[in-house]
Amino acid sequence: MPTSTSDARRYFDLDTPFAMKRGGELHNARLAYETWGTLSADKANAVLILTGLSPSAHAASNADDPSPGWWEEMLGPGKPIDTDRWFVICVNTLGSCKGSTGPASINPRSGEKYRVDFPALSLEDGANAAHELVAGLGIDRLACLIGNSMGGMTALAYLLLHPDCVRSHISISTAAQAQPFAIAIRSLQREAIRLDPNWNAGNYDDEHYPDAGMSIARKLGVITYRSAMEWVGRFARIRLDSEQRDDEPFAAEFQIESYLDAHARRFVRSFDPNAYLFLSRASDWFDIAEYGNGKAAAALAGIRLEHALVIGVSTDILFPLSQQEEIAEGLGRGGAEVRFVALDSPQGHDAFLVDIEGFGGAIAPFLGAL
Amino acid sequence: MPTSTSDARRYFDLDTPFAMKRGGELHNARLAYETWGTLSADKANAVLILTGLSPSAHAASNADDPSPGWWEEMLGPGKPIDTDRWFVICVNTLGSCKGSTGPASINPRSGEKYRVDFPALSLEDGANAAHELVAGLGIDRLACLIGNSMGGMTALAYLLLHPDCVRSHISISTAAQAQPFAIAIRSLQREAIRLDPNWNAGNYDDEHYPDAGMSIARKLGVITYRSAMEWVGRFARIRLDSEQRDDEPFAAEFQIESYLDAHARRFVRSFDPNAYLFLSRASDWFDIAEYGNGKAAAALAGIRLEHALVIGVSTDILFPLSQQEEIAEGLGRGGAEVRFVALDSPQGHDAFLVDIEGFGGAIAPFLGAL
Repeated sequence: MPTSTSDARRYFDLDTPFAMKRGGELHNARLAYETWGTLSADKANAVLILTGLSPSAHAASNADDPSPGWWEEMLGPGKPIDTDRWFVICVNTLGSCKGSTGPASINPRSGEKYRVDFPALSLEDGANAAHELVAGLGIDRLACLIGNSMGGMTALAYLLLHPDCVRSHISISTAAQAQPFAIAIRSLQREAIRLDPNWNAGNYDDEHYPDAGMSIARKLGVITYRSAMEWVGRFARIRLDSEQRDDEPFAAEFQIESYLDAHARRFVRSFDPNAYLFLSRASDWFDIAEYGNGKAAAALAGIRLEHALVIGVSTDILFPLSQQEEIAEGLGRGGAEVRFVALDSPQGHDAFLVDIEGFGGAIAPFLGAL
Repeated sequence: MPTSTSDARRYFDLDTPFAMKRGGELHNARLAYETWGTLSADKANAVLILTGLSPSAHAASNADDPSPGWWEEMLGPGKPIDTDRWFVICVNTLGSCKGSTGPASINPRSGEKYRVDFPALSLEDGANAAHELVAGLGIDRLACLIGNSMGGMTALAYLLLHPDCVRSHISISTAAQAQPFAIAIRSLQREAIRLDPNWNAGNYDDEHYPDAGMSIARKLGVITYRSAMEWVGRFARIRLDSEQRDDEPFAAEFQIESYLDAHARRFVRSFDPNAYLFLSRASDWFDIAEYGNGKAAAALAGIRLEHALVIGVSTDILFPLSQQEEIAEGLGRGGAEVRFVALDSPQGHDAFLVDIEGFGGAIAPFLGAL
C-alpha cells in the first residue's frame, strides 16, 4: 500500500503520471489524508469525507493529532459519524495546500513551485485522486461518501466517474452546477487576489505576499458563508470600544467589521493564494450537465445509489436550498431512497460547521440505518 | 432665490457656513438639482426625490437635458410620477460628485480639493441640505417626499429633522438603520478602495487612480443590488465567445463576469472614490433609533404624515423586506395611512430602477389619490 506516515497526516502517492481532466498531468503527486476508526475485515465500513475549499484533512482529533478538527463535534466515537462503527477517511483535496499536491508544491520536472503553471484543475481531478486513494486502501466500495460545499460537488463527480463504488451518499449545501451568483462571488474573490500587486502573476513570497487581496477574498467569503439573519442577532449595530479602533480614515467602527478582520487574519497567510485561485475556478467550472447530455437532472438520474441524504439550509445564499432540492430529486429519479432535509439554521452556508444539532440530527439516524 | 443655471442642472447655494451633524462646516457649498413640471401658485404640488448612493439629479429627461435619466420611465408627463400635475425636484445629495459639494470639490479655505478632509458626512447633512433647497424654492411643505435606497434613509432623516414639512412619503427599498450584513458589504467595498495603493489616502489623480479598488467595490455593489434568481434566468452558465476572452490566467470566462466588468467600467471613472467612501460610511452610520431613545420603532412612530407608501422587494438581500415592513408599521403607528407593497420582482434591490410595472403600478395610484 503506497502510503507513508508523517505527523498526523498520512500521504498517498498518486499514479505517475496523474492525468488531469483538462489536459496536463502531475508527476509524483500525493494526497494528504487522515483516518478515524478501524477498517473492517470485509472493508465494507468505509466512509469518505470530501471537504469544502479551505479545510484540511483534519476533520477531527485522532490518535496522531489530538487538536480539534474542523468537524470535531460531528465525527468520533458515539458522534453522528460514529467512528466506533465506521472507518472514516478525510482527504485534503488535490490542488489544495494542506499536504496534498497543489500550486504551492514543487514541480519535480522544474524543481520550482508550480504556481500558475499548475495544470488547469477541475473538481473531477480531485474526485479521481480521492478514488485512487480509496482503491489504494483496498476499498472497492464506500459505505458512504460525504461531501460538503465544494466537496459536495467533488462527491457528485466521484459518483459519476466511478459508478458502483459508493453505496450511500450524504450531500450537504452544495450544487450540481455552479450558478451565476456563486460564480460572480468567486470571480470577484479571484479578482481581488489578482489585482493585488503582490500577487505578481502568482510569483509572491513571504515578504511580498498578496495580503490585501486575500483579505478581501476571505471577507467576501465569510459574508456569503453566513447569513444576514444570524448577524442581526449576533452583531446588530454594536460598535467597537475606542481602544479597539485605529485612527486611519474609514477604519472599522462596528463589531461586524472586526469579526470579518479576525476571520481574514486567520486565513490570509494559512492558505496559498494560487491554490485558492485554482480551487475557486474549478468550482465555477463544475457542471454535471456535462454527464447528462447538457442536463444536470439527467446526470443526477444516472447516479446509482442505495440511499442518499441531502441537507440544505434556507438561509444559504451561496448554495441555495433550491439547488439541494434539485440534487435530492435527481438522485431519487436515479433510484436512490432519498431523505431530503431542509434546515432553518440561521448560520447560512456555514451551518454544517456549527449547527451540529441540526446536521448531526439528520446524519446520525441516516448512517445508523445503513 | 440663490440659484444659477448651467447645462441641465441648476445649483442652489447653501447657507454659509453650513453646519454638519458631526461637527465641522462647509463654506460656499451648493447642491445640484433638476426639476420637472411647474410649481403651482400655492406651491402645494412639490415632490422631492432623494436618490441612492450614486445617481445624479438627472432622474429623467427634461427641456434642459433630453438624455434619458436614471428613472426615465417613472417620471414625466402621464408617467407614474406625473409631471403634468407635480412639480418634481431631484437633488444630487450633499457629499456626492455630480454637481453638489463633496470631497472632490475645492475647499474655499485652502484652494485645494477637500479629499479626506471633507467634514464627516452623515445622511442627516444630506437631508438638511435638501430641506434648505426646498425652502429656498419657497416651498413650505412637500406634497410628497420620495426616497430610494440610501435616499430612503435620507428621507427618514428629513422627516425627523423637519416635522410638518411633508404631507406624504414614498419609501422604497431602504432601512431605518443599517444592519450588519449591509455594513459588512459596504465596509468591504471601502476596504477594496482603501487597500488600492493608488487611493493613496485620498490623494489620487487621473494618472494614479484607484481603478482596481473601485472596480471591486462596484462589482460587489452590483452583486448585492441584483438577485441570484434573476441571474439564473439571465446568465445561467453562458460562456463568453473566445474572442471576448483575454489570455491572462483566471480571466473572465462567463457572461456574468463580463456583465460585472461592464458595470464596473462605466462606474470606476465616473464616480469620485472619496465621495464613495464618505457616502458609504454615512449609510453605515445611519440609525433613526437616535431619534427614538434608542428605538427605531419609536422614532418612526414620531413621524407625522398623512399618507405613506412603503415598497420593498422579496429578492432584495441588501435592504430586506423585513426592513420595509418595519418602516411601514412604524409610520402607521405615527398616524399615517400606510400602504405597504411587497413585490416579487426578480431584480433584487435594483428592482425600483427596472421593474417599472411593479413600482409604477404602486406609485401611480398612490400619487393619484393625493
